Amino acid sequence: MEKLEKLYEGKAKKLFATDDPEVLWVEYMNQATAGNGAKKAQIEGKGSLNNRITAVIFDLLKARGVDSHFVSSLSDTEQLVRKMDMFPLEIIMRNTAAGSFAKRYGVEEGTPLKQPILEFCVKDDALGDPFINNDGLIALGIVTEEELDEISRQARAVNEALLDIFSKIDVRLVDFKIEEGRTADGRILLADEITPDTCRLWDVKDGGETIEHLDKDLFRRDLGNIIPAYEQILERLEQLADAEGVTRS
Amino acid sequence: MEKLEKLYEGKAKKLFATDDPEVLWVEYMNQATAGNGAKKAQIEGKGSLNNRITAVIFDLLKARGVDSHFVSSLSDTEQLVRKMDMFPLEIIMRNTAAGSFAKRYGVEEGTPLKQPILEFCVKDDALGDPFINNDGLIALGIVTEEELDEISRQARAVNEALLDIFSKIDVRLVDFKIEEGRTADGRILLADEITPDTCRLWDVKDGGETIEHLDKDLFRRDLGNIIPAYEQILERLEQLADAEGVTRS
Repeated sequence: MEKLEKLYEGKAKKLFATDDPEVLWVEYMNQATAGNGAKKAQIEGKGSLNNRITAVIFDLLKARGVDSHFVSSLSDTEQLVRKMDMFPLEIIMRNTAAGSFAKRYGVEEGTPLKQPILEFCVKDDALGDPFINNDGLIALGIVTEEELDEISRQARAVNEALLDIFSKIDVRLVDFKIEEGRTADGRILLADEITPDTCRLWDVKDGGETIEHLDKDLFRRDLGNIIPAYEQILERLEQLADAEGVTRS
Repeated sequence: MEKLEKLYEGKAKKLFATDDPEVLWVEYMNQATAGNGAKKAQIEGKGSLNNRITAVIFDLLKARGVDSHFVSSLSDTEQLVRKMDMFPLEIIMRNTAAGSFAKRYGVEEGTPLKQPILEFCVKDDALGDPFINNDGLIALGIVTEEELDEISRQARAVNEALLDIFSKIDVRLVDFKIEEGRTADGRILLADEITPDTCRLWDVKDGGETIEHLDKDLFRRDLGNIIPAYEQILERLEQLADAEGVTRS
């Protein structure tokens, strides 16, 4: 596989074309951002950790019947993925109230929810990625009803599988953000990344008394160095994949 | 019917108990507010117009099979309504992009929507009445799934009936806000008011070139005096009710 021209540079990843029109070359960067880019830093080792974490998560998901765009790992900071036509959506699943949700509705962070919440935001930095409901998505023509049904079904399936994965490594999956797209042959599929940048992962101790953040909230809220936390997540996930005999791509 | 103690004073109405525990006495005030109370004014005649407009709208709705809390008119500024246990929700229906919706998603005001949009906001002044989706409403225990289904069904039925009513008086129903509650015997029912304070009503002229606001946006946006506009709405609705032979409560 040959790495060709750069197609896109986001906040955390660069995407390159390859000699296969259906495959992209992804390079994970060390940049960390928060607050829609208002806070920014270079954190040595972050790119490598996220590249390896998302790879093992995609493999663990695949073993649970949940497919994704992930093709194979290339190096510590690089992987190959399927090229997709992305929906302009941040797809958020919440199992516990935290972050913007807790603030918006005045509920304490950590409040359990009666059922998982699926939320959509329109990906648009200039508008601040506004929250939108299902009627709005369809009425504005952002997705069709059929696309929304399939995206929602997949988001809930990803949540079920991730809850299983993280419970097995003693981490509470509070919430996460995914993205979905369509392959050239029209299949809707999980894409982007699943890492401590895009999930809230809590190490809950003392019967809920102490919460140790193992995710980007360490950076967002100036709570400490993210690297040891991300290393812990990677290590526990690798051990789980080994224990389950999961095929590594 | 005897007017007893004041139970509640909102931004536009006062509610009093009566000697019938199932019935409340509503007094419409002249106060106009916008921006969650940030802008405030006394506008002579507004209370009377809104009291009479909502009464004729509730009668026109009833004639179309849509029931409400409205019992009967008492005076220019007073009416009797059924006492209800209110859901803490602003229930918004949109037929055309306008106001906060247009701003939030960066679409031009007046953009037609592919289908009507039903939105919910949690009624909470301190939180700024935050927008919430269906999953959020159920997961936070604000309503049950059965209540949400019935409220949604009624909101869409109110929209269909109001679209019919306003098209017959040559006014475009852009969007509106309603509230719903439960009667003592457990029935979910339309409540609060339907007036130019709670609807966006446009007189569209020159094939869409000119928009004349016949609603509270005149006040919100300092576009002119609301009274002649509200008078026009009342007059046209009264004529429609007469033409249709609608029974006035």
